[in-house]
Amino acid sequence: MAANRPEVIRDKSDMRAWSRSEKYRGKTLALVPTMGFLHQGHLSLIREAKSISDVIVVSIYVNPGQFAPSEDLATYPSDFHGDLRKLAEAGGVDAVFCPKNLYESGIERKKMDKDPSFGEEKAVSCLEKEEGGDGHETWIRVERLEKGLCGKSRPVFFRGVATIVAKLFNIVEPDIAVFGKKDYQQWRIICRMVRDIDFAVKIIGSEIVREADGLAMSSRNVHLSPEEREKALSINRSLTKAKSAALHGQNSSQEINDLIVQEICDAGGRIDYVEIVEQESLVPVENINCPVVICVAVWFGNVRLIDNIEIKM
Amino acid sequence: MAANRPEVIRDKSDMRAWSRSEKYRGKTLALVPTMGFLHQGHLSLIREAKSISDVIVVSIYVNPGQFAPSEDLATYPSDFHGDLRKLAEAGGVDAVFCPKNLYESGIERKKMDKDPSFGEEKAVSCLEKEEGGDGHETWIRVERLEKGLCGKSRPVFFRGVATIVAKLFNIVEPDIAVFGKKDYQQWRIICRMVRDIDFAVKIIGSEIVREADGLAMSSRNVHLSPEEREKALSINRSLTKAKSAALHGQNSSQEINDLIVQEICDAGGRIDYVEIVEQESLVPVENINCPVVICVAVWFGNVRLIDNIEIKM
Repeated sequence: MAANRPEVIRDKSDMRAWSRSEKYRGKTLALVPTMGFLHQGHLSLIREAKSISDVIVVSIYVNPGQFAPSEDLATYPSDFHGDLRKLAEAGGVDAVFCPKNLYESGIERKKMDKDPSFGEEKAVSCLEKEEGGDGHETWIRVERLEKGLCGKSRPVFFRGVATIVAKLFNIVEPDIAVFGKKDYQQWRIICRMVRDIDFAVKIIGSEIVREADGLAMSSRNVHLSPEEREKALSINRSLTKAKSAALHGQNSSQEINDLIVQEICDAGGRIDYVEIVEQESLVPVENINCPVVICVAVWFGNVRLIDNIEIKM
Repeated sequence: MAANRPEVIRDKSDMRAWSRSEKYRGKTLALVPTMGFLHQGHLSLIREAKSISDVIVVSIYVNPGQFAPSEDLATYPSDFHGDLRKLAEAGGVDAVFCPKNLYESGIERKKMDKDPSFGEEKAVSCLEKEEGGDGHETWIRVERLEKGLCGKSRPVFFRGVATIVAKLFNIVEPDIAVFGKKDYQQWRIICRMVRDIDFAVKIIGSEIVREADGLAMSSRNVHLSPEEREKALSINRSLTKAKSAALHGQNSSQEINDLIVQEICDAGGRIDYVEIVEQESLVPVENINCPVVICVAVWFGNVRLIDNIEIKM
């Protein structure tokens, strides 16, 4: 099994040098960005990457820039040694990029009263709460797509995601990057960012991987109690029913929406949102007569789960 | 002279292929981004680039994303054939990248009433006024540095600059990029963006080039009447006096500021701002006891001019 063990790279200049040396030898390079605590969904992304690229880099980095101070950065699950073991067992991964920190912290300033940006009210991430001063201050905003769906309750999330992905692209310099369609809005935002900022990276959206009982795989599932986990099956069940209804002629978004909300609420979930939107623009539709995706975010206990289902009309 | 004529590249994929082929042959590549209407200041950037890099690409693109609708995009001077002639005469430039358009226009949407981002009040550039819908929507914000100085009167400017520079970096893939320190805040913002987003590009800030009488070179100088041009000499005159006063022990920013304002107003200039700020953070200082830069923006007639002077204490 030792031959399968990926190289572990912690420093960003080492990472870039490694990538360039592979590419110089004519290899195509695919990046699979993760926040670790790997599950079958991640391994599926890696298999997809392996099927289209010579060399695979998996990044493991829990990005403070995408968590609001009220969110679960502190309790986000991690198991670095377990992750390395899983990657070695799965095989096919050439390098794991696991930096300690990817943001500049800069110098804390004293004379904040003269700083023109001081005192402004705005949404901040965990990063900014800690840093300030001359620290990281550059953010990529995909201004339209970041607003809907998860963006409503997580105003700094996609700013943080787009920014860290751009950083990883500039460090790893991949030809291809693979994202899971479970994070549907994230995937579309990355595609849009790549188009708009001309990154030379091909983005692959990989299908959702589910447990045998239909629950979409997520690192956060580990926080569900057995009862909550059982109740959370209502998410995929409702989406499947909704898709079936739409394919059988029910084209009213409102009707479909009601069906999903009822199923999930009956199971005890607290709805963050259920929305039926166009697949690329993520603009809500009143009638389902184009390719749409139904996106949901639901709380079971203290765990917020997201899921979605595409409907090609 | 024909041997000096640079290759003219209009398409972004051709540009990237050209760069990669040069870099594959082991050449270092420097980019000098411009908006055309080239003058001695630009040629000085090119000479600086040539002194540290094998291959030089000059981009010529008037970026609609950095102009507000109220600003001078329509009257921004241009002379493409003159620019090519100057570059051929100067020599040393290998390629000129002059794309027609670098922004996606997308599909105009009809059902804007359902779009969550529609109707929000915000500052827009010329680009967004024209496009909308599925067009370009990704912007890079250097949130602290973009706010002061020119950012106060030009709220979309640095967002547009950072974004187009990132696009050019991703298209041209240079090792080095050279910016003029006349656009001091712009230079600092690009440095910060490169640091924060991990672009593999070394940024060079090149000294201001002045006419014999001291006026900082600018494409916009062509719009000054002979009288306005004469009056505009007060800018550099006041900055030089200010620096001399500071070096002779006058360390009160307020006193230095008053000196500059008086000199320029006496000459008939309308002050946009005069600020004395730290060189890297651009935070205003009350007392000049660290390396500072004095930045000014002044209107003479309908022409807004900027200039600055560094003081190393």
